[in-house]
Order: sequence, then structure tokens, then C-alpha cells
Amino acid sequence: MQLIISIDAMGGDYGPSVTVPAALQVIKKHANLKLILVGDSNVLNAKINELIADSPNASQDKERLIVHHASEVVAMDESPAKALRLKKDSSMRVTINLVKEGKAHACVSAGNTGALMATAHFVLKTLPGVDRPAIISTLPTTNPQKEVRMLDLGANVDSEAKHLYQFAVMGSVLTQAIDNIEKPKVGLLNIGSEDIKGNELVKQTTQLLTEAAANNTINYIGYVEGDDIFKGDVDVVVCDGFIGNVALKTMEGLVKTIAHYAKQAFTRNIFTKIIAVIASPVLRNIAKQLDPGRRNGATLIGLQGTVVKSHGGANQAAFAYAIEEAISEAAHNIPQKIRDRVGKVLL
Amino acid sequence: MQLIISIDAMGGDYGPSVTVPAALQVIKKHANLKLILVGDSNVLNAKINELIADSPNASQDKERLIVHHASEVVAMDESPAKALRLKKDSSMRVTINLVKEGKAHACVSAGNTGALMATAHFVLKTLPGVDRPAIISTLPTTNPQKEVRMLDLGANVDSEAKHLYQFAVMGSVLTQAIDNIEKPKVGLLNIGSEDIKGNELVKQTTQLLTEAAANNTINYIGYVEGDDIFKGDVDVVVCDGFIGNVALKTMEGLVKTIAHYAKQAFTRNIFTKIIAVIASPVLRNIAKQLDPGRRNGATLIGLQGTVVKSHGGANQAAFAYAIEEAISEAAHNIPQKIRDRVGKVLL
Repeated sequence: MQLIISIDAMGGDYGPSVTVPAALQVIKKHANLKLILVGDSNVLNAKINELIADSPNASQDKERLIVHHASEVVAMDESPAKALRLKKDSSMRVTINLVKEGKAHACVSAGNTGALMATAHFVLKTLPGVDRPAIISTLPTTNPQKEVRMLDLGANVDSEAKHLYQFAVMGSVLTQAIDNIEKPKVGLLNIGSEDIKGNELVKQTTQLLTEAAANNTINYIGYVEGDDIFKGDVDVVVCDGFIGNVALKTMEGLVKTIAHYAKQAFTRNIFTKIIAVIASPVLRNIAKQLDPGRRNGATLIGLQGTVVKSHGGANQAAFAYAIEEAISEAAHNIPQKIRDRVGKVLL
Repeated sequence: MQLIISIDAMGGDYGPSVTVPAALQVIKKHANLKLILVGDSNVLNAKINELIADSPNASQDKERLIVHHASEVVAMDESPAKALRLKKDSSMRVTINLVKEGKAHACVSAGNTGALMATAHFVLKTLPGVDRPAIISTLPTTNPQKEVRMLDLGANVDSEAKHLYQFAVMGSVLTQAIDNIEKPKVGLLNIGSEDIKGNELVKQTTQLLTEAAANNTINYIGYVEGDDIFKGDVDVVVCDGFIGNVALKTMEGLVKTIAHYAKQAFTRNIFTKIIAVIASPVLRNIAKQLDPGRRNGATLIGLQGTVVKSHGGANQAAFAYAIEEAISEAAHNIPQKIRDRVGKVLL
């Protein structure tokens, strides 16, 4: 089967200068893949011609790289409401429309998160039985062979227990299909102070998840604390979107802070600079294990179609990972699997 | 004025083998300091004699190091309710009692967090106008000269807007006094997705904080996201205890994960081990900037007395920092300052 992925080629901080080369990089790796690049056709065609002029398989690659014109672009700081109401021919909207119309199996955008969520939700609608979509992404663990998926990372706030239960089911289905884990271990994010076992939301959700575990609907293993996320003992971590987003952003900020001090320490003087050169293979190795670019591509889960959100500042390699994530989810037919599963357990 | 600090000498993972040498280390630095070590007097006296036998100022130091007997110890995994009800002569309880009775200006414990919070709350009570105590601690920023204080880190869950407002006032008073900042910049932890400006709690709290800023009660500067915490632009970050605890634990877990990969990369083979030796001064420098031990000592703020919570696994240097934190708060008379300020703005 030929997979077709639509790409918001104008989205992100760098637009076509990142999205087009990333698309070319990915298409060379998958013989049965077609990519639809959505955006200003003049700009995109020029970029494609520039990049594949010297390539030996130029014509063949070009055949599977379709440009679909869209006349507008959603700015990175544009209000979601405005984008949704006024920019009906934006590259973002058209990219999602192609999924809705069955012309693409999944889509990717590095555009404005709020606008993407609002547009995807509006165009694709949630799956029957799913009240709210969630954002799910992978995080590293101390086991280099193992990643953990966490949701919701910020699609919603003020979630109720039933929403967290739905997130648990959806995260479980996705992890099962993509990571090929038969019974993904699902944990509920909580705090561990001895006298306070969670807030009201956690208490109510615990009840639903415990019942679901008793029915074999999900493999619920209990609470995980913030530091347990990285231990590799759990496959899916479930939480409210406010908390998930704070945790994610805190991780980003902390990594930047550590990188800042590392850079400062290694560039202090000529001796530390020499040490930096000597240590660079080891430092690169550490960075590679934790590289967020390798995990670029958060999915809006729970919609009638797959939408992968790339980081706005993604470079070519990171954006290519986001496209790969969309391919993987499309190949595994994730929305249909969630629909089937949710139909059985939530409807 | 002589400052007196009571210390739960039996608390923490290592008990007297860490608390006693840390106490000796600190007492040598402060001529007008008296420390009361609370716990099994046989054990503590033996430990003190062992440590100061060879010290030139042995008798002088010993004079300011008082042993106060307590017959029981709260285990690290003991339930707070049980500790509170059944162990009335625990080193933890007696340590806090000394503050209550005016025999110590502040106290420190590395014991069981839940039991410490429950006992401190029960014995000392909150200040008038304060509904709930909070846990406040410092975090690093990319500016090595600047730390940020964050609360609540887990004393409460399901906080209401008025509680977060009280936390903002208390955090502001503490930062003003200890860090000597005239108008500490207070930020409210939020998530930044463009269409969802915070959850219900944030919306309600925003209103209270904006009014307080208009009245010059606090210097409220608006929202901070998870990654803004470390930028050094804000002095106090306010959030619900569930979220604060998740963020804190997530940071701990991430730092451990990075350290794990760094260790693995540097011990891979003989070459990387040599590189580790060469790079060690730089690596130590990085670790020093971010050393959580330097920031050991979270304060239970909002009580009628100062209680500093050390990390259970603190080593001597880290426990000494927690004692220094208690000294600093006692010297600045923090509970009285909060009482005055809260009396003006909250009652």
C-alpha cells in the first residue's frame, strides 16, 4: 500500500527551508511513500528544483513529491480563533483537510500549536467515545532501548477523570501498535508525599483505571511520580494537560540550563576549550542519547485522523523524525485502532 | 543575639552520622550559634565525643552543642498519622516542640516528609490569615548569581486561588528578607498554548494577583511557563502543590537520567575513561553550578515557626546547607515578617 502524508510546508520557524529538505530526506528512504507539500507552490517548486537538481533519482523522487498550493500561512503568533475563522486556505488548514478528505493518511505541521490544535479538532473531530483529543509524545529513559510515552502534554486543561481514562486507553493502543508491546504498562502521574495520596482528580481517575485493569482493558500499574517517568518501568504516563505541559516545559528549561553551564564551563579559557575538543566525542554521545530532535513529533491523539506536531524550531533532521512518526502512525492505522478499542471499552 | 536551632539528629537516611558532623561544621562558622541536637542522647554524645576529641576548640564548640534526649524515632516510611498519634517523644516531634516552646528559633529535619509536614502543622499551627502552609525551595537559573524560589512544592493539593495568593505573599516576604530584593518579581506558573490561557485555578488566581499588584502588595509580573523558571527573570514562582511537586520530581529524574548517560559515555572504554579524567575539572565545575546539595533545605512556610526540611538522602555538606537555611530564616525572623505582612494584606 502506498502511504500518503501531507505536510504543512510553510509551518515552523524556518518554513520550506527545513520542511522541503526534510521531506526529500524521508522520501528517499521509503519507496512506497508519497508526500504532499502544502503551501505557496512557487516557493515550494523552486525549493524542490534547487534541491534535487543534482540528485541521480531526481525525476523518480519528484514524482512522489506533490506540491499542493495553499495561498495563506498561519503566523507563529497568530491567535487560533483568527487562524480558524479567517485563514481557510492556509497551508495548515489545507494540510489537515487532505487527511479529512481521505487524500492523505496522516499529516505533519510545525506551525503554531494553538492554531494547529484548534484547526485539527475543528476539521477532523474526535473519534466516537473520545471527548477530548490529547497530545502524546515520547520521552527518554535511563534504558537507551526504551522510551516512555506521556499524555496529555497540553491539549486540554481541567480534565476530568473520564478524560484521563480515555487518555489511558488511547495511549495504550498507540504504544501497543507502534512499540509492539502487548500490554503496555500504564501509570498515573501522582505525587508521593505520604499523607496526601494525590489530588481529587487522581483519586477519581484511580478508581476508573483500577476497574479498567480488573477488566483487562488496560494494564494499569499504579502511580508514577515525576522522577519515575525516566526509569523505564512504565510505557505510558497519563496526566492532565496542564501538568503534562508544565512537566515538559520544565524538562526543556532544565536541559537548556545544564547545556548553558556546560558551554560556559567548556569555553572558560584556552585549557577548557582544549578539554572540550578532547571530550567532544563523549559529549556528542551523551547529547545523542538525550537529543530531543530524535523525539520530535508529538501526536494529537483521539481525532478522526493523525496529526503530528513538530517543534516549531525543528531543524531538518528533527522535522524528518516528525514525518517518520506520521508514517509510523499511518502505517499502523492508529486512529482506526483507537476507534475499534474505544468502541469496545468506552461506548 | 544568640540564635538557637534545633535539629532532628535522628532523621534522614543516615541519621547522626550525617547530622552531627554537619552540626559541628556549621557551629564552627557561627560564634553566636547554639545547636540543639535532638535524639538518643547516648548515641549523640558518643558521636560528638568521637568527632571533637582532637579539635582545638573542642570544649568551646561542645558548649554550644546541646544534646536533648528523645526516646523515639520516626521511620522514613512511617505513616504520618501514626507518627503524629503514637510517637510523641520522637526526635522529630521534640525538635519541633522546641520551636513551639520558644526554646529554638528554627528547626531542621531530614526525616519523613509526610510526618514532618503533619507534625509541624499540628504543633506549630499556621499564621493568622494563612490557611495552608506551603513548601518553598530555591532552584538554579542560567544566571549563576541568581536563584529562584518556587512554592508550593507539595505541602497541599487542590489549592484554591486564595491559597495561591497567600503563597505569593509569603514567597515574596521570604525572598525580600533573605535575598534582600526590594520588590521580588512574582510569577504564576502557567502553560502557554495560545488558545488555552491557563486552567480555572490560574484564571481565578490571576485576578487576585493582578489586584494585589495594583495595590502594590506584591510585584506580580504575570505568567511563567515551565521553561521560564530557569531564566532568572523571576524571583518567586507560585503554583499548586501537586504541580510544583511533579515539576520538582521531574527535574530530579531528568538530572539523574542525564548523569546516568554521562557516566555511561565516560566509562565506555579506556579512552573515554582517560577523557573523563582530563575533563573532570570542567565536569566538576558544571556539577557545582547545578549541585542540588547547595540548595538543600526546603522551608515549610506559613507556620508559626520555621521548619526546614532537608532531603532525606542529604550528605554532610547538604545537611549543613539546610542548617544554614534555618539560621538565615531565623536571623531574618521570617515567620514574624510573614505575620506582619499577612496581617496587613490578608486579614
